[in-house]
Amino acid sequence: MAEATLFDEETGGAPSTPARRPRRAKPAGAAEDGCAPGENRRAGRTAEEMASRQREISVAEFFTKNRHLLGFDSPLKALLTAVKEAVDNSLDACEEAAILPEILVELSPVAENRFRMLVEDNGPGIVPEQIGKVFGKLLYGSKFHKLSQTRGQQGIGISAAGMYGQLTTGKPVRVVSRAGKRAKAYEYVLTLDTARNKEEIHSKSEIEWHRPHGTRVEIELEARYQKGLRSVDMYLKQTAIANPHLTLTYVDPGGEKVVYARSTNELPAETVEIKPHPHGVELGRLIAMLKETPSRSLGGFLQEEFVRVGAKVAKDICARAKLSEKAYPTRIAREEAAALHTAIQETKISAPPTTCISPIGEALVLAGLKKEIEADFYCASTRPPAVYRGNPFQVEVGIAYGKPGGVGLELTEEGRIQKRKAAQVTEELVGNADEPIRVLRFANRVPLLHQQAACAITKAVIQTNWKSYGLTQPRGALPIGPCAVLVHIASVWVPFTSESKEAIAGYEEILRELRLGLQECGRKLGTYIRKGKRLQSEYTKRSYIEKYIPHIGLALQEILDLTDQERDATVSTLDDVLQKSRKF
Amino acid sequence: MAEATLFDEETGGAPSTPARRPRRAKPAGAAEDGCAPGENRRAGRTAEEMASRQREISVAEFFTKNRHLLGFDSPLKALLTAVKEAVDNSLDACEEAAILPEILVELSPVAENRFRMLVEDNGPGIVPEQIGKVFGKLLYGSKFHKLSQTRGQQGIGISAAGMYGQLTTGKPVRVVSRAGKRAKAYEYVLTLDTARNKEEIHSKSEIEWHRPHGTRVEIELEARYQKGLRSVDMYLKQTAIANPHLTLTYVDPGGEKVVYARSTNELPAETVEIKPHPHGVELGRLIAMLKETPSRSLGGFLQEEFVRVGAKVAKDICARAKLSEKAYPTRIAREEAAALHTAIQETKISAPPTTCISPIGEALVLAGLKKEIEADFYCASTRPPAVYRGNPFQVEVGIAYGKPGGVGLELTEEGRIQKRKAAQVTEELVGNADEPIRVLRFANRVPLLHQQAACAITKAVIQTNWKSYGLTQPRGALPIGPCAVLVHIASVWVPFTSESKEAIAGYEEILRELRLGLQECGRKLGTYIRKGKRLQSEYTKRSYIEKYIPHIGLALQEILDLTDQERDATVSTLDDVLQKSRKF
Repeated sequence: MAEATLFDEETGGAPSTPARRPRRAKPAGAAEDGCAPGENRRAGRTAEEMASRQREISVAEFFTKNRHLLGFDSPLKALLTAVKEAVDNSLDACEEAAILPEILVELSPVAENRFRMLVEDNGPGIVPEQIGKVFGKLLYGSKFHKLSQTRGQQGIGISAAGMYGQLTTGKPVRVVSRAGKRAKAYEYVLTLDTARNKEEIHSKSEIEWHRPHGTRVEIELEARYQKGLRSVDMYLKQTAIANPHLTLTYVDPGGEKVVYARSTNELPAETVEIKPHPHGVELGRLIAMLKETPSRSLGGFLQEEFVRVGAKVAKDICARAKLSEKAYPTRIAREEAAALHTAIQETKISAPPTTCISPIGEALVLAGLKKEIEADFYCASTRPPAVYRGNPFQVEVGIAYGKPGGVGLELTEEGRIQKRKAAQVTEELVGNADEPIRVLRFANRVPLLHQQAACAITKAVIQTNWKSYGLTQPRGALPIGPCAVLVHIASVWVPFTSESKEAIAGYEEILRELRLGLQECGRKLGTYIRKGKRLQSEYTKRSYIEKYIPHIGLALQEILDLTDQERDATVSTLDDVLQKSRKF
Repeated sequence: MAEATLFDEETGGAPSTPARRPRRAKPAGAAEDGCAPGENRRAGRTAEEMASRQREISVAEFFTKNRHLLGFDSPLKALLTAVKEAVDNSLDACEEAAILPEILVELSPVAENRFRMLVEDNGPGIVPEQIGKVFGKLLYGSKFHKLSQTRGQQGIGISAAGMYGQLTTGKPVRVVSRAGKRAKAYEYVLTLDTARNKEEIHSKSEIEWHRPHGTRVEIELEARYQKGLRSVDMYLKQTAIANPHLTLTYVDPGGEKVVYARSTNELPAETVEIKPHPHGVELGRLIAMLKETPSRSLGGFLQEEFVRVGAKVAKDICARAKLSEKAYPTRIAREEAAALHTAIQETKISAPPTTCISPIGEALVLAGLKKEIEADFYCASTRPPAVYRGNPFQVEVGIAYGKPGGVGLELTEEGRIQKRKAAQVTEELVGNADEPIRVLRFANRVPLLHQQAACAITKAVIQTNWKSYGLTQPRGALPIGPCAVLVHIASVWVPFTSESKEAIAGYEEILRELRLGLQECGRKLGTYIRKGKRLQSEYTKRSYIEKYIPHIGLALQEILDLTDQERDATVSTLDDVLQKSRKF
């Protein structure tokens, strides 16, 4: 490396005296130091040698090496992620086809650290030509390019689960699907060619299947099964809470079967796909859209490609940008596009329609909480829709409160008779339950179990002042109390912090809505807790009266030499006076 | 939706009585319920309708919509990410070419919320044919497929920065590069076609350039500039600490120039590219390798495709797997491959060579800390290399301690004269400095500024018991004290938690090494702090003696009627006796 040092001293002058703006065509002289790579060094590579090593990376290779980005970092998490991707797809498909979903999830141990996952639905099925791509190609799907509320949005999930299974066990994915009663059922056995990110179909065959329509996917994978806060069991329970229209049958690796029956026969309100809102479109995207549009005039382009732009708004925008409404979109220059972009931002345009999102609704949030969590008090709030970066979204909050020892972890089993102990909600409870509250996070009805600390929902819960609602709260931490807080964000595009979709990114607009929702629901909780505290204090006072008045009666009897009758009358009068002096 | 309900009741039987193993060919009957999609519903789509909407998603479209995954979630972070990607590339290129790096970073405000970033290096340059792909295509590069320690590893970074610039400002990327003195310098102006993930070259021209070799990239982007813990300034300062062989000139948006001069003329030790270690290879990968290998025998395959497999180990593995060494790799069946995989795991194989990683080294960690952080005590430890999933890695820890008001944030300016106040390291200091320690995280010499809480380094610092080293530490939190802890992980493949490479995933092997390194360095700190405490207690005692002995002398003089001489002699004797009675 001694030569490198020499080299350094020779060229040292150039970068240590840079001009404020770099000199593009500095005359020679500085260039005379004469140390082109390839000359004055021992071990280094030349630009040509480096160029020969450059190559394209397949997206499947990328995610194989980075599979922790997709949620496959440990055998424990891999099992959850695989189930989640399959169930999310089943739910999306059923809802898109307007079918009330019935899903079977079955986990069977195959060997040590190896499980077979089977997920079967009564959805619309997949046409045979698409099966290979849907299960054997990353970044392929129907949900990425449209703006509507779906669980999946990336076109990665289920193929990634198959890829992980293949990587860890060498086994292919088995898919059975039937696209309607008049169609045939097919079984496909396939793997993913990672170097080309392309499906490899090992076999396809027509089979008999009892279902008139639906899809079944089987993946064998290296995994670990464990109950607890971040288990498949917990994911399925929470899925049942957030999807009251779902009937879910779950057979765990021990062969135990749980059925979560639906509590409503109504499908979530149908969502409408929307076009992008002008205020959420970046300049670069606008330029690309101008290039690609089939519209033949700028005015038409604005009205056709965006939501909430009518003739008047289009005219306003063009006028503000000093562009003709009749201009050819493809001929708009970059500077003109920039003016158009600025004009759009400055023009008042209605918020996007919110028919594209479907919240769970206060009534069903309450029903879900009551069905699965045993508590003494429930409340829920649904915020009006809001917008971030042009994307509509909506926040819902539900609270279950009051069960000694902390609520939220211990979800009741289906059908369990709930014994409410309303009288027990007292100051003592709040004091005793010394664990942080449970936060149940949902995005587009999907429970989020991992990366709690990194999630905007957790941040918003921490930023909320729970002391004013009767809970204790350490500085910068979750409040303490026997309480579970459910938070749901529904959006046409949920900004997750990673491909594994475990936490929501902290956009300011989203944090704000979350805080407002939590406050709304928190106030209801506060009213309840304060009432509980008042009742408790009443009860204490009353017990004092009941305890001491008779003794006072006896003492008075002795001092004043009263008859037993006179004594009882005095006690009764005293009692009345004291009870009345308390403010009910 | 009423029809959907009907449908549900009719098929309800099927999923509620699933067999332990699903029946693949259940005879009709159950299939007679007759509700194919398309019949019994109002609004749903059929499988055919859905199929028509399926399409491939370009990786560039994916990352445009998910740009927060790449670190471009806010204008503030975008600026840092763009600079980081460019500087990382420059450093990698210089080191690969064995050139002592000299880098210029210049940020110029262009408009409100818009900056021009310029990064220029004296690296080997890029051959013209590659410029388009390197800057205009995601998932393209030379570092992904090789196992060696580099800053970049994904082939995404710099193209993503350009893509973000293009998206937010509509402006193309400008690149100047010259691949050696005898080559010509070219200027390229290009953008990225997101729908196809392909470069679009707007212009290329031969230009005069003062540098004999190097690359300059200019990107205009929407951004916000701010000083502080997560600023470009901080990133560059920390880069200087971890790369003592780098000379870096930084012109900030205000036009202020800072030069970080190199403190060593030695390049980091050259790293050697290695083949994968057999113990880190999953079954699926093994099967793929068997298919792709040019080797014509299993024995040869094992020796040629893996590191640390010689003739004897290859023979052992084959024997254990009950396979012939002469078997054709491409003809190994899946079951045989599984046996091979198990045999590999059971065979003792030496750890991979560690010439593929180059730590900073204790001496240079110390030098870096001393140069940039003003403190009273410094120590550093470099752990021996270790392995996770077949990937060698190495952990280094450095500590700077003791400066009232908290060290770590206030890095000294280059050339600032450091005034040490060793005598001030006392109990008082530890007590007063009531802020958490600063954790400076590095991966392959790159500072990590974001997502501190999600990072394995932070977790390991929290898991370390700092009380035994003289710092206070709240439960489950960072210790408190005037202290900066530098932690560096060098590896051929750093497992980041997201594409933006801000935090390291918590693999158990990595956490373990981190804890050991922190303990090693912590013990040195503990010795120092305890010595400081002892010195302080000595000092207090001495000051008592000096304060009270003369008064005792005066009192004795009065009581015993001593002369001034006798008094002074007595005082001197007393002083001696007391000083001796203290244990030095």
